[in-house]
Amino acid sequence: MLKIGKYTFRSRLFLGTGKFSSLDIQQAAVDASGAEVLTFAVRRLNISDPNQPNFLERLDLGKYTLLPNTAGATSVEEALRIARLARASKLCDMIKVEIIGDPKTLLPDPVATLEATRILVEEGFTVLPYTSDDPILAKRLEEAGAHAIMPGGSPIGSGLGLLNPHYLSLIIEQAEVPVIVDAGIGSPADVVQAMELGADGVLLNTAVSQAKDPVRMARAMKLAVEAGRLGFEAGRIPRKRYASASSPQEGLVGS
Amino acid sequence: MLKIGKYTFRSRLFLGTGKFSSLDIQQAAVDASGAEVLTFAVRRLNISDPNQPNFLERLDLGKYTLLPNTAGATSVEEALRIARLARASKLCDMIKVEIIGDPKTLLPDPVATLEATRILVEEGFTVLPYTSDDPILAKRLEEAGAHAIMPGGSPIGSGLGLLNPHYLSLIIEQAEVPVIVDAGIGSPADVVQAMELGADGVLLNTAVSQAKDPVRMARAMKLAVEAGRLGFEAGRIPRKRYASASSPQEGLVGS
Amino acid sequence: MLKIGKYTFRSRLFLGTGKFSSLDIQQAAVDASGAEVLTFAVRRLNISDPNQPNFLERLDLGKYTLLPNTAGATSVEEALRIARLARASKLCDMIKVEIIGDPKTLLPDPVATLEATRILVEEGFTVLPYTSDDPILAKRLEEAGAHAIMPGGSPIGSGLGLLNPHYLSLIIEQAEVPVIVDAGIGSPADVVQAMELGADGVLLNTAVSQAKDPVRMARAMKLAVEAGRLGFEAGRIPRKRYASASSPQEGLVGS
Amino acid sequence: MLKIGKYTFRSRLFLGTGKFSSLDIQQAAVDASGAEVLTFAVRRLNISDPNQPNFLERLDLGKYTLLPNTAGATSVEEALRIARLARASKLCDMIKVEIIGDPKTLLPDPVATLEATRILVEEGFTVLPYTSDDPILAKRLEEAGAHAIMPGGSPIGSGLGLLNPHYLSLIIEQAEVPVIVDAGIGSPADVVQAMELGADGVLLNTAVSQAKDPVRMARAMKLAVEAGRLGFEAGRIPRKRYASASSPQEGLVGS
Repeated sequence: MLKIGKYTFRSRLFLGTGKFSSLDIQQAAVDASGAEVLTFAVRRLNISDPNQPNFLERLDLGKYTLLPNTAGATSVEEALRIARLARASKLCDMIKVEIIGDPKTLLPDPVATLEATRILVEEGFTVLPYTSDDPILAKRLEEAGAHAIMPGGSPIGSGLGLLNPHYLSLIIEQAEVPVIVDAGIGSPADVVQAMELGADGVLLNTAVSQAKDPVRMARAMKLAVEAGRLGFEAGRIPRKRYASASSPQEGLVGS
Repeated sequence: MLKIGKYTFRSRLFLGTGKFSSLDIQQAAVDASGAEVLTFAVRRLNISDPNQPNFLERLDLGKYTLLPNTAGATSVEEALRIARLARASKLCDMIKVEIIGDPKTLLPDPVATLEATRILVEEGFTVLPYTSDDPILAKRLEEAGAHAIMPGGSPIGSGLGLLNPHYLSLIIEQAEVPVIVDAGIGSPADVVQAMELGADGVLLNTAVSQAKDPVRMARAMKLAVEAGRLGFEAGRIPRKRYASASSPQEGLVGS
Repeated sequence: MLKIGKYTFRSRLFLGTGKFSSLDIQQAAVDASGAEVLTFAVRRLNISDPNQPNFLERLDLGKYTLLPNTAGATSVEEALRIARLARASKLCDMIKVEIIGDPKTLLPDPVATLEATRILVEEGFTVLPYTSDDPILAKRLEEAGAHAIMPGGSPIGSGLGLLNPHYLSLIIEQAEVPVIVDAGIGSPADVVQAMELGADGVLLNTAVSQAKDPVRMARAMKLAVEAGRLGFEAGRIPRKRYASASSPQEGLVGS
Repeated sequence: MLKIGKYTFRSRLFLGTGKFSSLDIQQAAVDASGAEVLTFAVRRLNISDPNQPNFLERLDLGKYTLLPNTAGATSVEEALRIARLARASKLCDMIKVEIIGDPKTLLPDPVATLEATRILVEEGFTVLPYTSDDPILAKRLEEAGAHAIMPGGSPIGSGLGLLNPHYLSLIIEQAEVPVIVDAGIGSPADVVQAMELGADGVLLNTAVSQAKDPVRMARAMKLAVEAGRLGFEAGRIPRKRYASASSPQEGLVGS
């Protein structure tokens, strides 16, 4: 079981809801993924007019924990405003802090992310900051009260996977809160790699919504999270320079 | 469905039966893996005296297709003799040709493997040669009539995974018979990588039997094969140098 | 020519002076490296009593530009104090800001590094901050007036090389000041990789001082920097999935 | 010094002479590379009519050892015929056996390469077979009398570098004749990597002749070979998971 603040989840796959080609496909992919936590950009939601149609309308929101994010924010102030708006809508008191430092890479701004995290924790939010794979920043975020750390594998939507498994591994090793690898995942192989490093979960969106067959990919991701977690728990064999026979190499048949 | 010669399988995971710490664990791991094909060294089987206890005794052999291998052979002649003995035992007419070229790496001898494959195909066996990841040798084995190609990821039992995904990918691209990645797999991540390259299946043994928790790892491998296959079929997103927003970066909430 | 602030260098290799087994070997390695910039920890220097022997005593300091660093600092205040002490000694007005965030990884503290850089720039130093490979932080340091950016390849002294070439490449692409890859380099191959990415230089210490033959390794590093720079300038061939004949494959001899 | 059969060389860089945009550039690149061994396809040489102009005409052939290759051969017979023709021309008794197994990848045919090597050794040639990175085949070639082993890093002209450093390292470890890494090299980084693995030399062509500035790249490759060899001899530092301070982290300045 994955515990983040006061929440508990069985699934370790967090799914983003953006960029699906239709709400039908979105709904089917969410189902196939087995995800319990769905993330979405507060900016996309027509919170000010609840009578307007919106991109979450097909989802049975009672079944999921919603994780609103501050996508689009480029400053502490914007992130705070979006987070407070999300809470006011009573959807959830969890917030994924996402403060972009650069439009080309969409990588997070370290100083602003740390500052916003500190303030939102003080305001009583359950805070999950999206951060780089810098182990020191991850530690600072935890010291600031973050309820989980969400280091990126690579730039959002890039599909480059885990560019620096070593630093992700250092983050996981030192963290006393859950680590959810977020951003850059391209395929199930990336998911399994993250889970085998000991990540507590993964968050992905584009890898499913932009796959050729999003529903099938959602199911692949569900299985990948489970395979990676089981593999981590089961304890892999060591790596060796030479071979190690699985069948005896000596002895003759019937001799 | 995976078709090899006259055989058809639903599972794409082939499991070796060696090196389990007990027959109980072997049985439970085989169950958890969902494997339909079990491989074993003919040399380990007391074929000459069927009344003797043997290491396959706990398995309900009616449920599985047995894939005997010629492990221990270091020449064409030895491989032929073992293959014929296996067929005489009426366990199966499939044979995995494994002719070791060196005791340190247990890598296969290319010339002997090709020669033994040619002869056993002529004798009517369903032949699956264990080979290196050399695309030219893989093609020659297919020309010699091999019913599947089993390129190694890395040395047997090394846990080094896929040392050369590019050549495995070239083998898969050119092959008109199934390609089963065999040897060297260390964890579910390696399995998913092989399946995402388009492999038709994987064969592994040590990664399960020598894991800290073999039964749990067997289940991880089952899910990994499925995740990788689904991921391959679903069509992953392209890799990009920069980011690609999954949430819109423009537009204000409620504006 | 490499220009950093008001300084100009022909050599692109910056060498650290610590951890040599003797001053003789240090001197010979410095000579062999061709380095013009030598870095050292101000803390190691007996600045308060210039009559004491010190670890730079064998070097003809007139031949080199000294780059004092703030190694040992864990806060903005400590870094500032060390930098001002270094300037007071009149050795050089360049300072490498190094504020460690964690004793295990010796990775830099992002927020403190940015703050110290801002202040030291205002005080008129030529500032070279040692930073992570986070492209956003690198940009912020440049905005704060840093005269060069020194992203680490991997933890100091780890010999792990460049853990994230992609982010280093993004830093190099965006930077309008020189980028000197610093920390983690283990061998000449790492140096060449950094230079081929377009780095303006590399700083290393342990890879030379702790090599089995430090003087020979110093010469290897000198050649590696030159090879990598020339390779970068010369424009490498593209990578292709298939072959591209270097000799014509058609036509018969004498036909 | 590098010894191959009865030959001794100071330079460890073997250069191919094909695909230069002009003979002027070819000549300048050969000079800049410092190569003592030049390889060329016998098929390209107008051996049957020595009065015809040819692509080696600008080179002072007295300065170099020529290494003719059998490029274009796809069978044992063709390779033998080309080798004998090369010897009849009295250019050199060394021969690089190159028998292509597939026009798309230009990877070598293992069985034919082994057979041709055996025959040419018996005929008194100094034989350098171009082979895959299969350690068993490398051993068989050495057993057949090959005077050096030339495993490919990746397909000819692909620029993919060393796809399987582990197998190259096993080949180097076991070989009692020189190992020259041949084919696929894209940049100086690949060269240094090969030399640090312990290779006795590298052979390349396209990486220089098709670089944007071939002469500058030739010089880069010369330095890369030297840097890599020195790095190998100097003994690199071990890789560590955590940091290892190059400057002392304790002690205050002036305290």
